[in-house]
Amino acid sequence: MADKFKPLSKNEVCAWDAEVDVLVVGFGAAGACAAIAAHDNGAKVMLIEAASDAGGSTALSSAELYLGGGTRVQKAVGYEDTAEAMYQYLMMANGPQASAEKTRRYCEESVAHFDWLVEQGIPFKDSEYPHRAMMALTDDCLLFTGSEKAWPYRDQIPPTPRGHNLYIEGDNGGPLFMKIMADGVAKRGIETRFETRVLKLITERDGEQVRVCGAVIRQDMQERTIAARKGVVLCCGGFVMNEEMIAQYAPELKKASMPIGNPNDTGSGIKMGMSVGGAVINMHEGFVSLPYYPPATLTYGILVNAQGQRFINEDAYHGSVGSACLRQVGGPVYFVMSIDDYEGYETQSYLGSPIGGTGETLDELAAELNLPEGQLQHCVETYNRFASEGKDPLFHKDAAWLKPITPPVVALDCTPGNGTFYPYFTLGGLDTTVDGEVKTAGGELIPGLYAAGRTACGVPRRGDGYASGTSVGDASFSGRVAGLHIARS
Amino acid sequence: MADKFKPLSKNEVCAWDAEVDVLVVGFGAAGACAAIAAHDNGAKVMLIEAASDAGGSTALSSAELYLGGGTRVQKAVGYEDTAEAMYQYLMMANGPQASAEKTRRYCEESVAHFDWLVEQGIPFKDSEYPHRAMMALTDDCLLFTGSEKAWPYRDQIPPTPRGHNLYIEGDNGGPLFMKIMADGVAKRGIETRFETRVLKLITERDGEQVRVCGAVIRQDMQERTIAARKGVVLCCGGFVMNEEMIAQYAPELKKASMPIGNPNDTGSGIKMGMSVGGAVINMHEGFVSLPYYPPATLTYGILVNAQGQRFINEDAYHGSVGSACLRQVGGPVYFVMSIDDYEGYETQSYLGSPIGGTGETLDELAAELNLPEGQLQHCVETYNRFASEGKDPLFHKDAAWLKPITPPVVALDCTPGNGTFYPYFTLGGLDTTVDGEVKTAGGELIPGLYAAGRTACGVPRRGDGYASGTSVGDASFSGRVAGLHIARS
Repeated sequence: MADKFKPLSKNEVCAWDAEVDVLVVGFGAAGACAAIAAHDNGAKVMLIEAASDAGGSTALSSAELYLGGGTRVQKAVGYEDTAEAMYQYLMMANGPQASAEKTRRYCEESVAHFDWLVEQGIPFKDSEYPHRAMMALTDDCLLFTGSEKAWPYRDQIPPTPRGHNLYIEGDNGGPLFMKIMADGVAKRGIETRFETRVLKLITERDGEQVRVCGAVIRQDMQERTIAARKGVVLCCGGFVMNEEMIAQYAPELKKASMPIGNPNDTGSGIKMGMSVGGAVINMHEGFVSLPYYPPATLTYGILVNAQGQRFINEDAYHGSVGSACLRQVGGPVYFVMSIDDYEGYETQSYLGSPIGGTGETLDELAAELNLPEGQLQHCVETYNRFASEGKDPLFHKDAAWLKPITPPVVALDCTPGNGTFYPYFTLGGLDTTVDGEVKTAGGELIPGLYAAGRTACGVPRRGDGYASGTSVGDASFSGRVAGLHIARS
Repeated sequence: MADKFKPLSKNEVCAWDAEVDVLVVGFGAAGACAAIAAHDNGAKVMLIEAASDAGGSTALSSAELYLGGGTRVQKAVGYEDTAEAMYQYLMMANGPQASAEKTRRYCEESVAHFDWLVEQGIPFKDSEYPHRAMMALTDDCLLFTGSEKAWPYRDQIPPTPRGHNLYIEGDNGGPLFMKIMADGVAKRGIETRFETRVLKLITERDGEQVRVCGAVIRQDMQERTIAARKGVVLCCGGFVMNEEMIAQYAPELKKASMPIGNPNDTGSGIKMGMSVGGAVINMHEGFVSLPYYPPATLTYGILVNAQGQRFINEDAYHGSVGSACLRQVGGPVYFVMSIDDYEGYETQSYLGSPIGGTGETLDELAAELNLPEGQLQHCVETYNRFASEGKDPLFHKDAAWLKPITPPVVALDCTPGNGTFYPYFTLGGLDTTVDGEVKTAGGELIPGLYAAGRTACGVPRRGDGYASGTSVGDASFSGRVAGLHIARS
């Protein structure tokens, strides 16, 4: 099989169609921030985007940014956050594959990054959105977007909200974020080419060292060569839209139902990086969600598996819950609740789960679900007995979400593969330094090659401990850092 | 960081210290079979080994070979196996990351591989070892070394034993296997160098194509260059002994207790492959075992987690059970059983688990284990009620291992990290074709470079569905195939 991303040798370039200092590939959050930071640090930048406008996957997202350590909003609302607490939380959430170095820098520079975003014009209201929600639908800012208030995190790290929603009504943060950043790019006169795809990198050889010095692009059906004196920053998103790469690198994600991202999340940046020796890490990991709130009242319910056993505290972040659902083996997953708590489901939910069963009594529901005899009854009875005391000795669900489940009862069928919405995206990518330089498997740097956003493996590394806002947070931060670093290189 | 495996350009080689057709790196099962097959197909072969003798990790193993499709022994003992049934089992066991192409070939050529091994002198007795065991301690041959008889496999594929133990008493299959293969290498006059390490590959450039044409080795404290006209076969084992690589690629394995393999399983072959553009896949996966039998009577017990809930059919293969134990979150794992079934533990077990609690009654044990009120009692009562009818509606443990758990009772504390023996090794490696050719990330072949055994990602790909004998089976098969293919290239 021929490698279509195989780099072109500079020797084969007869003439350059354009020459810049820095070529940024991809105009999502990472690319926009990289272009702006590189420009503001003196570099002549060209920004290339395959789609017909700016946006990337960021424009499709809520763009809640996961920031902390004492941002202006956190202070105004009255939360005392520290970079250390944020670091502890993210390290715990990202588990054994967490990068201490990247997480440390992300947390320590989080306030500065917030301030930089504000300087770019990103608006945040000094207010809090106090509800349990996937996203704020008001123009309020701060909300919990991870499992900070849930066990086991809350026992070890003081819960602090770090999701920063933009100052706009509705789920419109992503488009607003990208509009402002695109305006910033335009205002600076940064050369931008849309509907333009990078086909391959161009390399020059210096002894045994290979340096990235440009790229072949396709624009208006024509191939052109762009010289990038300082190098290329790959901000091309992840690979969730590439079925072949998902099968090869992250096959477990195929259990989820819908890849989320933009159509150009095909892994092209990752493959271009690999084509010049870039190493990839954490490729098997992805974010998976069971987006079961709104209505938040579903959180009063319990999730049970084929054994009629609970398996998680249902007040955990929807990504933790989604990952846990996919780990249940050999059978259905049901979300069991009182009919009263189910009411908002039909009008407010994104979940798409069919009803698995209903019952005037628990026995009736258990029979309908065909669960092993007595299991659901024991599970609910135990849950109810402790819930009435505000306790959950099994999974330590917070008392705020504990109340007995009383008939009539209903069960949503959340079995993966039956129509339930399990969105997913990838969390693996090119191995980079904290400055965004792409590394080889041996740990050497590849001169002239940077990656940011989901083309790199960044701060968020684990579906189980994912927090919303770490992708746009990390993409904007890693893009900005890479842009700064390459401009000064 | 400098890349110590960075290849040397042929241009920098003044003179070759030796010239062969095929250089095989590593003298475990894969290397031995590669060397023999290459030699027997007309190639001049040199075999290099870092240790002072042949063996690799194969010599440390039981060397039960997972083979089927109707081997001589299977037929003699009366099992009707087919390549198709073997294929279905391995595909199901290796889950979404299974390679259909490699598995298909391994199964279809399994009988021929068995016959080839017999030709090499590997002895198998036409008999069966009928007990539930990690390995046969008699000289009998056939035994179940996977989850073939356990749910959910047994309901979908007729259970057939495919572990082929060598014709020798005790756990001595690995040393015998390697002695016979080493004799075969010696008998053929294949040049073998021990205490010799490969430092880096040597490449030559043909336009943009890079070809592997030799290696730099270190022997007697001196660096020497070996030309390999047809190329190099990397059979250097996996990376389980490389803490840095485990942290980078397979951090979940750190929850297990002891890397198993030989000290040279440092990933050097994988890194050399990567240094010339070889892609790696499945790097996060590993085999993890909870080696709780012998005594087989522990299989009558039940495993419970922090919630006092069962989580697997306890008659599954010890690797499936080990993987499941590591997935339990936030708390202890206990193995609960009647004192009668515990008796052999103190004299026969490898497990090393401390006693977590004992009880004249179940209540006493539950209190001692500090499990949530009523959970263990419900769990055992439910288990017992159905077990007395030969049923396990929760996890479908086979009736052969179902009987009520009766006081006095004991619980072993199998919590990961508390001293319980959780051995592990890696299942990721270089991406290769079915013939052993190393592929780039773009799917191109790297001329002159082959990998086999655990340096490649082969047939076994998943800790959860691992079967003993698939490593030595795959190592010997993939080595032989690579040796054959490179000799004819």
